[in-house]
Amino acid sequence: MQISDKFHDECGVVAIFAHPEAEKLAYLGLHALQHRGQESAGIVTSDGLTSRVHKAMGLVADIFTEDVLSKIRGTLAIGHTRYSTAGDSALLNAQPILVQSNKGSIGVAHNGNLVNAAEVRGQLERQGSIFQTNSDTEVIVHLIALSREHTLPEAIADALRRVEGAFSLVVMSPDRIIAARDPRGFRPLAMGRIPALAGQNRDTIVFASETCAFDLIGATYERDVKPGELIVVGPEGISSRFYSTAAPQSSCIFEHVYFSRPDSVVFGRAVQTSREELGRQLAREAPVEADLVVPVPDSGVTAAVGYAAESGIPFRFGLIRNHYVGRTFIEPSQSVRDFGVKLKLNPVQSLLEGKRVVLIDDSIVRGTTSRKIVRMIRSAGAKEVHMRISCPPTISPCYYGVDTPSKNQLIAANKSIEEIREYIRVDSLAYLSLEGLKKACGDGEKTSYCSACYTGKYPTNIVDVEDIQAAPTRA
Amino acid sequence: MQISDKFHDECGVVAIFAHPEAEKLAYLGLHALQHRGQESAGIVTSDGLTSRVHKAMGLVADIFTEDVLSKIRGTLAIGHTRYSTAGDSALLNAQPILVQSNKGSIGVAHNGNLVNAAEVRGQLERQGSIFQTNSDTEVIVHLIALSREHTLPEAIADALRRVEGAFSLVVMSPDRIIAARDPRGFRPLAMGRIPALAGQNRDTIVFASETCAFDLIGATYERDVKPGELIVVGPEGISSRFYSTAAPQSSCIFEHVYFSRPDSVVFGRAVQTSREELGRQLAREAPVEADLVVPVPDSGVTAAVGYAAESGIPFRFGLIRNHYVGRTFIEPSQSVRDFGVKLKLNPVQSLLEGKRVVLIDDSIVRGTTSRKIVRMIRSAGAKEVHMRISCPPTISPCYYGVDTPSKNQLIAANKSIEEIREYIRVDSLAYLSLEGLKKACGDGEKTSYCSACYTGKYPTNIVDVEDIQAAPTRA
Amino acid sequence: MQISDKFHDECGVVAIFAHPEAEKLAYLGLHALQHRGQESAGIVTSDGLTSRVHKAMGLVADIFTEDVLSKIRGTLAIGHTRYSTAGDSALLNAQPILVQSNKGSIGVAHNGNLVNAAEVRGQLERQGSIFQTNSDTEVIVHLIALSREHTLPEAIADALRRVEGAFSLVVMSPDRIIAARDPRGFRPLAMGRIPALAGQNRDTIVFASETCAFDLIGATYERDVKPGELIVVGPEGISSRFYSTAAPQSSCIFEHVYFSRPDSVVFGRAVQTSREELGRQLAREAPVEADLVVPVPDSGVTAAVGYAAESGIPFRFGLIRNHYVGRTFIEPSQSVRDFGVKLKLNPVQSLLEGKRVVLIDDSIVRGTTSRKIVRMIRSAGAKEVHMRISCPPTISPCYYGVDTPSKNQLIAANKSIEEIREYIRVDSLAYLSLEGLKKACGDGEKTSYCSACYTGKYPTNIVDVEDIQAAPTRA
Amino acid sequence: MQISDKFHDECGVVAIFAHPEAEKLAYLGLHALQHRGQESAGIVTSDGLTSRVHKAMGLVADIFTEDVLSKIRGTLAIGHTRYSTAGDSALLNAQPILVQSNKGSIGVAHNGNLVNAAEVRGQLERQGSIFQTNSDTEVIVHLIALSREHTLPEAIADALRRVEGAFSLVVMSPDRIIAARDPRGFRPLAMGRIPALAGQNRDTIVFASETCAFDLIGATYERDVKPGELIVVGPEGISSRFYSTAAPQSSCIFEHVYFSRPDSVVFGRAVQTSREELGRQLAREAPVEADLVVPVPDSGVTAAVGYAAESGIPFRFGLIRNHYVGRTFIEPSQSVRDFGVKLKLNPVQSLLEGKRVVLIDDSIVRGTTSRKIVRMIRSAGAKEVHMRISCPPTISPCYYGVDTPSKNQLIAANKSIEEIREYIRVDSLAYLSLEGLKKACGDGEKTSYCSACYTGKYPTNIVDVEDIQAAPTRA
Repeated sequence: MQISDKFHDECGVVAIFAHPEAEKLAYLGLHALQHRGQESAGIVTSDGLTSRVHKAMGLVADIFTEDVLSKIRGTLAIGHTRYSTAGDSALLNAQPILVQSNKGSIGVAHNGNLVNAAEVRGQLERQGSIFQTNSDTEVIVHLIALSREHTLPEAIADALRRVEGAFSLVVMSPDRIIAARDPRGFRPLAMGRIPALAGQNRDTIVFASETCAFDLIGATYERDVKPGELIVVGPEGISSRFYSTAAPQSSCIFEHVYFSRPDSVVFGRAVQTSREELGRQLAREAPVEADLVVPVPDSGVTAAVGYAAESGIPFRFGLIRNHYVGRTFIEPSQSVRDFGVKLKLNPVQSLLEGKRVVLIDDSIVRGTTSRKIVRMIRSAGAKEVHMRISCPPTISPCYYGVDTPSKNQLIAANKSIEEIREYIRVDSLAYLSLEGLKKACGDGEKTSYCSACYTGKYPTNIVDVEDIQAAPTRA
Repeated sequence: MQISDKFHDECGVVAIFAHPEAEKLAYLGLHALQHRGQESAGIVTSDGLTSRVHKAMGLVADIFTEDVLSKIRGTLAIGHTRYSTAGDSALLNAQPILVQSNKGSIGVAHNGNLVNAAEVRGQLERQGSIFQTNSDTEVIVHLIALSREHTLPEAIADALRRVEGAFSLVVMSPDRIIAARDPRGFRPLAMGRIPALAGQNRDTIVFASETCAFDLIGATYERDVKPGELIVVGPEGISSRFYSTAAPQSSCIFEHVYFSRPDSVVFGRAVQTSREELGRQLAREAPVEADLVVPVPDSGVTAAVGYAAESGIPFRFGLIRNHYVGRTFIEPSQSVRDFGVKLKLNPVQSLLEGKRVVLIDDSIVRGTTSRKIVRMIRSAGAKEVHMRISCPPTISPCYYGVDTPSKNQLIAANKSIEEIREYIRVDSLAYLSLEGLKKACGDGEKTSYCSACYTGKYPTNIVDVEDIQAAPTRA
Repeated sequence: MQISDKFHDECGVVAIFAHPEAEKLAYLGLHALQHRGQESAGIVTSDGLTSRVHKAMGLVADIFTEDVLSKIRGTLAIGHTRYSTAGDSALLNAQPILVQSNKGSIGVAHNGNLVNAAEVRGQLERQGSIFQTNSDTEVIVHLIALSREHTLPEAIADALRRVEGAFSLVVMSPDRIIAARDPRGFRPLAMGRIPALAGQNRDTIVFASETCAFDLIGATYERDVKPGELIVVGPEGISSRFYSTAAPQSSCIFEHVYFSRPDSVVFGRAVQTSREELGRQLAREAPVEADLVVPVPDSGVTAAVGYAAESGIPFRFGLIRNHYVGRTFIEPSQSVRDFGVKLKLNPVQSLLEGKRVVLIDDSIVRGTTSRKIVRMIRSAGAKEVHMRISCPPTISPCYYGVDTPSKNQLIAANKSIEEIREYIRVDSLAYLSLEGLKKACGDGEKTSYCSACYTGKYPTNIVDVEDIQAAPTRA
Repeated sequence: MQISDKFHDECGVVAIFAHPEAEKLAYLGLHALQHRGQESAGIVTSDGLTSRVHKAMGLVADIFTEDVLSKIRGTLAIGHTRYSTAGDSALLNAQPILVQSNKGSIGVAHNGNLVNAAEVRGQLERQGSIFQTNSDTEVIVHLIALSREHTLPEAIADALRRVEGAFSLVVMSPDRIIAARDPRGFRPLAMGRIPALAGQNRDTIVFASETCAFDLIGATYERDVKPGELIVVGPEGISSRFYSTAAPQSSCIFEHVYFSRPDSVVFGRAVQTSREELGRQLAREAPVEADLVVPVPDSGVTAAVGYAAESGIPFRFGLIRNHYVGRTFIEPSQSVRDFGVKLKLNPVQSLLEGKRVVLIDDSIVRGTTSRKIVRMIRSAGAKEVHMRISCPPTISPCYYGVDTPSKNQLIAANKSIEEIREYIRVDSLAYLSLEGLKKACGDGEKTSYCSACYTGKYPTNIVDVEDIQAAPTRA
């Protein structure tokens, strides 16, 4: 569970080719990707003859019981875990989608957001297509079915050329897995391998949003699916093609700042390395005289370790997190001050009393939570509170698969840094510079990043922003 | 719960036009139609602006809690309750279906079975349509969306002209309800009316598979939707058209024999009247000297009352039914004889001891259950058991919306009446004649009946029986 | 589910001695006794070494899954099903109770109500006993533990001599089953036998509130536990003693009128025989010219069959019951007339229209439900409605284990028959006479009955009625 | 969830006196104490007239919904959260216990373990007491009820003088809260205060196992309940007495090492202070040349921070914990190596590769988990692994309320340190010395500690160890 004033993760995908218990590996992969979406999950499997699906609201480990998995046994599987908007139709929007079409049975799981979905969907509806969900994924599936290409890989390539935006896709036919990434490579997608078991005649090939999924299932990371690449894994082996002409790479830098697990390798770079370096760079850019470096757990922890290492100021857990927080919580009618935050975090008075504290977090979204945390730290006796944020001010919403509030709710889009400092009541406030951010994440080395949420400069046309904002869900 | 060796009911539909609590009326209507399908249920509503849907596995009263209903408030509603095949995709196949299309938002609930569904679906897939369910309903929705007609009613008429088979359909647009029946009128669909409430400027118009749904919501039966008729109820009032040229009416006679509730009026005739007359006719055709007429509860009860009245032999409840039977049941490893039947039925020894019993049921499907019941009655001391069935031998599967076992499992398709008598071990066995059946149900008066399950003479072409048999679900 | 305006059943008990799957037989026995209490159920087992218990709120079949039963395997078992008052402490009051004491491990299940429970409990508390439940059963268990007798059977006898009222009791020690009935034999308790399975060296002995439990588990009824008798079944065989001097038998006649299942033998007499005879006697005492005899289902059905047989007036199901009624039900805000009754019952207009109807029920408690049913029958077109009740007017509450409303809510305690007739708006109303009731139930043959609810003459001292009325639960 | 090879926490208690929403504060207090017991929880409340109870299996936030809390409203409340043994009787053993007795209604919640429970229980059973649970708490309640003292506080004092062992107790009468601790003060119990709300005429007095519960409900820590002290809070105010003559204090040192939350003040000392000092002392006693200090999360984190600070070796999160781990987990049949540990922990290869690692944990129980963690760290590329444990070797089971495995399962009771080092395959292994432990926890300052689990020297007689080991549950 995140502290609520955070951007929400936006889906994780996994795919398994050729394993006697593909459904179990998909399940474990989703479990490792649980932090990318906690609202619903689904798995589609194939045993070569029959495709089966199970989707439900809730956490992966609650949905996929032994009994459920035994009903969807297969040698191929794709899975999806999702942060979704609430509502009764939520389950209908869960992924993967499994359809019958002129290309046979197709299962699709998708992480990202199309920027021209509304436009394409309008065209499709006018031609007579019906839509049973609000997801971009259904748009892609229609395009695949309507493509005049005769093979599924070519039809997928054809479909992907018609959509624009962010997408990392895994597709399952009865006997193949196809994985693809959009030409700019916004969202991650990695390929791994499990050596053939005794008596099995081929290695198992796996795909996942993050490599931490590989670690749990005993797979080895091989490489990323490249921007614009489409990989087909089938009985004949592995083949790759580029379905689109080159576009400048613009991978989501926020995966390194916040989304991905620190034990993952994302866009070819260890997240832990970036995250510690963010803290170090922040210490170099915005030093302060203080007694303690304290992270807002869990998201600020690694950057705080880096800040402490670079600055020489001791790192301490001055805020303790309660991991048992459930979904709903009952508040006394005469409420305890900062009740919502207190449920999740509690300051350690013995550490903070009389101290000058550097408080490290990875973002300030609306500012309300930060203000409460600062108040708690002060009431525990801290003499000074200096807030340091391990990325630049967030000023623009994301249209590439991250669930951000609209611009008028982003505090940094509406207030100066000094105004924010006053609002959250800290002695000093500093954000990491854009250059510092890029440097810390190795921009230009193995990848180039999208940093539109910090700059407002979007790497694609935003066909119809109003439509996009109104769109109820993103996969 | 039925005794398991019965044909399964096949869906009930309901529709509500213009009521401040349309979702509640739809829910109560489904509750009254619960006997037509106990596996899943759904309601789609519209408040004029937004369409909402809730579907789930289970019984109507368990699915639609106060909380759920409060989230789908509307002034228009359609509902569906369904007997469905098991499996994880069951929920995906639940109805109504709600889609977005070039005709706007469309909700559809359907009772029946298309005999050319596989063929039409194949054509649609070849044109690029994708199918997310196995239901005929999705075929109809595609045809509506692809129709070149510009209004929804015309598009529905267009779609219905392309399908063949049994269907009683309710469709909801954001501000209209459309109801239609196939040209032969296989399945029932009645129209009723609730007078305008104080402060409301129009009557509420309702549709339901059976009139017992009207009784619960305080509606008055007006008339049936006619075979081949399409009725539109909207802000402008009620209009009717016939979308198809006339075909001979062939309404399902088994609705009167078994499916419908005895308190319903179906095909313009009180079910109770037919059912009692079936027993009387059976007494005239197959009299026997005996001490008691005993029904197999609950299905054989009314026919037994008729048999007793006509024959003068006393009617008694010699078998007591346990209404608490749940879904699964645990059997001792050294099983009690006829355990499965005993859970549901228990003979009354004080009544049966030393008696000659006429046992009345409405069908023998596989024969296994009948054999066990007869054994129980004998072990309670009955001296003679004479079985009387209130319809002819069932020899052919139904392709019009009734879930029947395949021909090789129907005992009457494979054994002579004398062989069946020996198998179930009764002193005598008689079925009602086809003529007796038709006469008892008033054939030729207000309606003409399909009796294909007793004759094998199907009123439509059976385009591709193999395909139909393989089709996993019927709505 | 009963139509709500009924007396509530008050517990069923079952006990199994020496069977390899005693827990399964106890479960099935409780299932057959489900009509005696639908709120909670429990089973205590012993495998000779360890006693285990499982209790929960809900129906037997929902509580005892395969998984639960596998955790309480035993060769001895006792079970209890209960109608309980609501409230959060309901589960704590569920039975059987399992305790450790100086007589070892003791499980107790009890059907009945003690009239001196409050007094005895007060004495026990003063001596230092603590009470964790509100049930009479805990009082009995304390008395057993505090008895100076050295054997469990003697301690039970000692305890039972100190309590007064109605109780049918089964007790389980690690290797014995003890069954006992109060000296007046208010509530039923029957003993049966299952022949030894192959390889088993002794028969299985079973006890149950009603013999219908024996039918389901393949046991044969042997005899009743006699009033004042205590039967011990153990490794040494079966022994019997009478722990109390004789008192006039006063078995609950309402077991024959309403509570017990018609397929049970209760107090040595087939319930079905009594119930049909109640109808016949009613026809003799209160004839009327009419066209149809219609029962209020399900409770009035057998008496109606008897009335019809005796009077020659045809029996018909003019009211159809919906068996799917759940616990809570959502009503439209502008309510349908008689909504609550309509959910459960619907009149058959085709039968009732223009007819003179004799409506048969087994009681009128508050009168409100009867009034609604009569209104429904009239609105379906009945010309005359003549109500006949198959027992005398209920004028006094029961203190022997039946949950009756207080006297001021019993319509017959407060109005004359003519006033009741006016209130429920029937053309004529008649009750069965007390003499007719006793005759129909064979009073003085095998048993003598308590009819205090019809006469106000209680067979025991009512020590402290105020206390009893305040007591929150009766077992 | 803890990594499974840990000692289990053993209950938390909370009590609230005089608050309009006492049930909500009790619930929040239990939530803050959730780490002390995750298996069941319960709350007993009083509104001055009626006592109410709700107990269930599961987590606090799942058990106490808004609906449940609304049914147990009160101005006084006590609560309990519990680590319990599995089994069907688990719910029966849940606390608090609520009984009726000659001292009125009494609710009791208890954290600890009696060492003479079996003996006292035997005496009580011989006198005729019955036991419905296996908990020590029921023993105490019997003693209270049987005491000849006339007031509840005196009766409690009387009862507590008869038991020996560890207990921190809160008792609720309809209008008083009584809190008491055993004479040696094994387990913690703190008292706090919430200032009177507007319109309320007295402060709210609260008790809790740890002060982190006070932080969440806005209470201020006042002082500990002292060893041997009994505090009564009632309408007349707060009074204190010492019911027992002095015994040397022996508070559980493992509360500082592992159990308590780092943000709590326990035995008058901030846990965080002790825990960091444990790491520092460990660094002084067992230095090693290395590149990184890595904690086993979450339990080893603070000690690792201390070790790093003292040694100058950088602190890094080399193991990432997955917080979504559920109760049961499905493993592929051809299992992934160290699967169980991998579900919870994943090494960060980019950090560990080529490094010499100091791995910090707070205990080695059986050694199996440590061995797997070490293997994971090595397979991530670590060059050397040096394990450091922040307390001495655990060689003796606890009889004072901590659930420890028996002696033959404690690796340090059966192997030398060198043998353990070989078994878990580290380059070096060191434990903190007993002196170091005591010094780090401030022994002799505000409290003196029990360290029997490290020394085998128990501060009380162990009346009957065999009995104790066989006792199925401890509260």
